[in-house]
This record gives sequence, structure tokens and C-alpha cells, in this order.
Amino acid sequence: MSREINKDTQLCMSLAGRPGNFGTRFHNYLYQELDLNFIYKAFTTQDIQAAVGGVRALGIRGCAVSMPFKESCIPFLDELDASATAIESVNTIVNDEGFLRAYNTDYIAIAKLLAQHRIPAETTFALRGSGGMAKAVVAALRDAGFKRGHIIARNPAAGQALASTYGYQWLAEIGDLTVDMLINVTPIGMAGGAEAEQLAFAPATIEAAKIVFDVVALPAETPLIRNAREQGKRVITGAEVIALQALEQFVLYTGVRPTDEQIARAAAHARG
Amino acid sequence: MSREINKDTQLCMSLAGRPGNFGTRFHNYLYQELDLNFIYKAFTTQDIQAAVGGVRALGIRGCAVSMPFKESCIPFLDELDASATAIESVNTIVNDEGFLRAYNTDYIAIAKLLAQHRIPAETTFALRGSGGMAKAVVAALRDAGFKRGHIIARNPAAGQALASTYGYQWLAEIGDLTVDMLINVTPIGMAGGAEAEQLAFAPATIEAAKIVFDVVALPAETPLIRNAREQGKRVITGAEVIALQALEQFVLYTGVRPTDEQIARAAAHARG
Repeated sequence: MSREINKDTQLCMSLAGRPGNFGTRFHNYLYQELDLNFIYKAFTTQDIQAAVGGVRALGIRGCAVSMPFKESCIPFLDELDASATAIESVNTIVNDEGFLRAYNTDYIAIAKLLAQHRIPAETTFALRGSGGMAKAVVAALRDAGFKRGHIIARNPAAGQALASTYGYQWLAEIGDLTVDMLINVTPIGMAGGAEAEQLAFAPATIEAAKIVFDVVALPAETPLIRNAREQGKRVITGAEVIALQALEQFVLYTGVRPTDEQIARAAAHARG
Repeated sequence: MSREINKDTQLCMSLAGRPGNFGTRFHNYLYQELDLNFIYKAFTTQDIQAAVGGVRALGIRGCAVSMPFKESCIPFLDELDASATAIESVNTIVNDEGFLRAYNTDYIAIAKLLAQHRIPAETTFALRGSGGMAKAVVAALRDAGFKRGHIIARNPAAGQALASTYGYQWLAEIGDLTVDMLINVTPIGMAGGAEAEQLAFAPATIEAAKIVFDVVALPAETPLIRNAREQGKRVITGAEVIALQALEQFVLYTGVRPTDEQIARAAAHARG
């Protein structure tokens, strides 16, 4: 039984170049489960300034921000939380009576997962990728005290910039480097992508590692995660990241923290 | 069974100084009844320019406009339909891929009701009121060819301006004037108002008339309508106006015209 929308219903939304269904399904499932008078809806825009102005002017309570708006929205906000400042990238806007405060719950989620999985800061890592999400992961690693890491990126400019900004080494290819933790922040293994069946790291590289962290969320079990599990490695999955970052947004918007079981059900519903 | 909101769901909305529930309940009822992938939600704003900019930038399909934004929104729109031009007042914005065309469905509804009830243009009338809705009614009467009418308004400036703009006579009080059709466009008789129990016209004035038209929509039967019915007069009710104007908005937003029975059920649900 769903609530009927009324004049007091609060709207939360997302802005993305290509809107998906995960956030809409995740949040609406929990609103219903927790009987909260909220609805959630995905939007795109050709005009980020007017869209953010609309969020403020219409009293839209929260707005998730995805590519390509994570940096371009910043000039139109009132305040950045430390999570957004850390990577100069926003994925969450909270509207308190017209005051727009921005967060990056990807960063928050990565930081929490590193803590929850008790990954020691002495762990060496190699991270593939150099985009916005790679920045969130690298910043969270740096801020958690990880000292020894390599950024693996074919694009020298992006790879070197990311590595040097956060104090790590850049490599174009991983070659025969072995590390404790492998982290994939590329689309390799993503359902529907050109490299859906590929492994982000070679089996021998995986064999030499202890922990495998794949940020790809769909499918819940990527080829990399499957291979790592088969080799008995500890894994952190993109499904955990996407659910935790969405949960952090949910708490920021509503002030309500669902149980772990409710979150798992909402995430499964949202993926399904 | 309601649809689940997804990325393709279209949003329609309202902007009002004090949002009510009628539009939200009316539209959402019909979306469900007709299985349309739309949702409707009421908003208010402190910044009409940014709110209209947000409608455009977020691709919000339609926006109802209520007091105090019916005129102040006009500079931010792209085109006015004849119904809005007639009274320089907008109550409906339709967004076609960023192009905002504005209508006044109060005007459209009044014009249609005069035609549906086959009120001859020779009918003399007295209309009480001088606000925005009075303007819509007076313009629709003028455009339907009604030649002989009085505007009854205690405020001389507003009353005279309205009367002279549309070619009618102004009177501060109705006195012992008798006419064929009495029209109330004041809050007299409105549920919850200071004059909820009052008659907008004296019983003797009603007795002398043939038709009584009350624009007050809540309650569905105002003291004026009840008195007129008891005297065997033909009546046009505010409930008809509000349902028909909401229907016209519905058709503009969705392209779908519900049946009369569906509209009646939606209006009853929305009032209830």
C-alpha cells in the first residue's frame, strides 16, 4: 500500500546526463517501507544553473548529482561539505529552506567501506582508473592514511595528475607489479559495456593480491569479483558502494537511517 | 495498484502561494485510473523566476499556476495562448522540450460551461467580484457575446477598471437591480472562510433571476447554490469550474481526455 501524494509530500531527485533507475527505485522503496511522505524522481537537464536554481526555488529537498554535472554544479551551491571539498566533486545536494549544502557520498561510502572491512592503512594498492569516481576512491584512501599505492591509467595526463595530487605513483600498465589490494574504477566488467566479459586485472595479479575491490555495481558479481572469490580473496563490491552511497544520501535527505536489512532489500529491488 | 515511479515518469506540478490538495489528488487519481506514467505534486516558491526556470530546465511537463503568481510568471514564459492573453493571466504552463507555452484554463472552463449550459448571449447578468478569477469570468462572458452586464464590487477602482475594460457597468452594491443570471466570484460561501454561511446575493435577488453561477468550489454546494436550487433556479457550480479547468490542464499535459465519469470520480476524490 503506497501513500497518496499530497501537498506536504517532499520531492527528492537526481540530475544526470543519462538518468537511470537505481536511485528512483532505491529511495521510493525505502519511503514506502518506512512510510515517509517523500517521492523520488530522476531528471536530466541542458541547463545546470537553472536546474539547481529550480531545486532551490521549488524547495526540492535533495538532489543527487551524476555525470556530467558533478563539478559544473558547484558554482551554484551555497556550501561544500568536507566530503565534496576533498575531491571538488558533488554527488548530493541537500536543500535546507533554500540553502544548498553539497556532499560527496561516494567519498563517504568508500571511506566507510575501508573502515567496515578493516583494511589496514599499511595495505599496498593498485587502482585502475582516472575519472571522477577514481578521484573519490583515491582521496578516501589518502585520507584514511594509505601511504603506498599505484594509479594505473593509460591516459598519462589524467593518471599522473591523479597520482601526484594524492601522493601516489602512476603507471600506464600494471605489468608484473604485485600489491595487497587491487581496485578497479574503470567500466571493465560492467554489464552492457564493451568490456563486460573482461577481467580488470590478470588472474596472476589477482592471485598475488589479498583483497579485490571492484567499484562496478552492475552486475553485482563482475568477472573480477567472481575470479577473486574463486581464488578465496576478500572482496569489496560495487554493489556495496552504490548501496552505501545511496543510503548516505537517504539519511541526509530524510534524517532516517534504515536497518541493514531494509537497505539490502532496497538495493536488491533497485538492481532488479 | 499504482505504478512504480521510474526514470521515464513525467512530473507535473503546481505553484501556489498556499498549495492545496485538489490538483494533486485530481491528477494523480486520473494518472492511476488511466495508467499514465505521470506524477503530480504541489509546490510553493519565494522566487518565481527561478521556479519557472526550474520547470524549463528540469523538463517538468506541466505547471499549474495559482495566486500570487498568475501575472508575475508571464515575463519568464515563451508564448501566451489566446486564453491567457485575453486576461493577461496564466494558470497553466506546458513545457515542450524547453519551450514554455501558457494558458488560462479558468477562462477556457468558464467559456465551455457557458456553452454547455446553453446560456444565451442575450442573458443579462450581475457579477460580484473584481479579482483575477472575476476577470476570467468577465472576459469569457464578453468573448461569448454577452452585451448587458453589471460588475458589483465595493472597491471602486478595481470594479470600474474591470467593468470598463470589458464593456460592462459598475455598481458598488447590487441594490434592487434584477438580472437573468447572478454570478458570484467572491469568497462568500467558501468553506472555512469568514463568510462561509453567507449568501452572496439576497434571496429576493435570487428569486428574480433564472440562473445562478457560483465560482466557489468548496463546498460543492454553497449557501448560494443551495438557496438557488431550493428556488428551482438553474445553477452552475464552482465544482464544475474547478473540475473542468483541471480537466483542460490534464488534456494539455497528457494529450489524453478522460471520460465524464472518470472526471467526476477524480473531482469527488480530489474534494474528499
